[in-house]
Amino acid sequence: MIKLYGYWRSSAAYRVRIALNLKKIEHELVSVHLVKDGGQQHSDSYVKMNPSHLVPTLVDGDFNLNQSLAIIDYLEETNSNVALYPRDIKNKALVKALAYDLACEIHPLNNLRVLQYLSNELSITVDQKTAWYHHWIIEGFSALELRLAKTSGQYCFGDNITVADLCLIPQIYNAKRFNVDMSAFPLINKIESNCAKLPAFIDAEPENQADAT
Amino acid sequence: MIKLYGYWRSSAAYRVRIALNLKKIEHELVSVHLVKDGGQQHSDSYVKMNPSHLVPTLVDGDFNLNQSLAIIDYLEETNSNVALYPRDIKNKALVKALAYDLACEIHPLNNLRVLQYLSNELSITVDQKTAWYHHWIIEGFSALELRLAKTSGQYCFGDNITVADLCLIPQIYNAKRFNVDMSAFPLINKIESNCAKLPAFIDAEPENQADAT
Repeated sequence: MIKLYGYWRSSAAYRVRIALNLKKIEHELVSVHLVKDGGQQHSDSYVKMNPSHLVPTLVDGDFNLNQSLAIIDYLEETNSNVALYPRDIKNKALVKALAYDLACEIHPLNNLRVLQYLSNELSITVDQKTAWYHHWIIEGFSALELRLAKTSGQYCFGDNITVADLCLIPQIYNAKRFNVDMSAFPLINKIESNCAKLPAFIDAEPENQADAT
Repeated sequence: MIKLYGYWRSSAAYRVRIALNLKKIEHELVSVHLVKDGGQQHSDSYVKMNPSHLVPTLVDGDFNLNQSLAIIDYLEETNSNVALYPRDIKNKALVKALAYDLACEIHPLNNLRVLQYLSNELSITVDQKTAWYHHWIIEGFSALELRLAKTSGQYCFGDNITVADLCLIPQIYNAKRFNVDMSAFPLINKIESNCAKLPAFIDAEPENQADAT
């Protein structure tokens, strides 16, 4: 059975959990606690599997794969029951761009190791850390809201769930966790409330994971 | 004719230039100077095209696409003459993961807007900025070097150029520009010297662009 090594609060693992649920792929979730024991992602056994010290990692038999978006595309190619991309080449490219706007421009700046570096190495204050966090989310969401005005329906791209939604929902979770004012983003909020009705998204929520503390 | 809006020193634009060259796609490069005029990526006309205020943007007729990796995949799907991914599903996934290790974990932390925020908002010193820059490259390259021990041949994945090489070469360019000690990365260095022999890579180098100053 497929195993996903992840962590309840990891946005990247959260994206993959949604994909596994949408595609109804039988899987086991293995917790790699990013805080406990100085961070289990740094343990010898995990680093052997993933030398980047990051979650998630997918293990499918003897095949071992890192990077959430590579994992989701692998699941897409091996389980085509529920498509996460439009078929049209241009539309597919636009969905990828929306996903990268989230996964390459917002998320990398606000993940745990970056916040730890800012606090430990640059000794920034809690207020500065919050401002940093908010800055990248607000900048990213402001651009995204403009793009969604052209692409969105019920979801980020028309009325079908795509990879863009799998990236957006975890990013909104993080924004809310850090009390970002979401009132300027009506389309993002609409998509969130549409996704929040779907069991695949609900089951994948951080608070619904076994390792949530 | 396809137009690529970019900047000579943008790693993301550099990736796309290599793809356009490898695939021999006729194109026009349009300079968006990221420093001049307070940053031309913030001009009204550019933001209308790309509300993220980032380069590159591809314009193909009336189709407008941002995000370098989405653009490269679009070129891949519309110009299959030179394949940038292996055909095998697992190998393709591994190539994507290598590309994302660079494009999602290293590059976003060291691009211009982040360095500007660190200097302007957090008032870090030049030495702290250099340490930040080196930290993410060394951490990322250290993990990548271990992965390449399993995947590389002449290039990142065996003996064919893939998207991973298109992400790696611009990242090495940046590492050298900021005087990162590259001696710990023999496989990365080998791949660099192999790519440096190819006209598609040479023509795409920042210093060979019309807007290089």
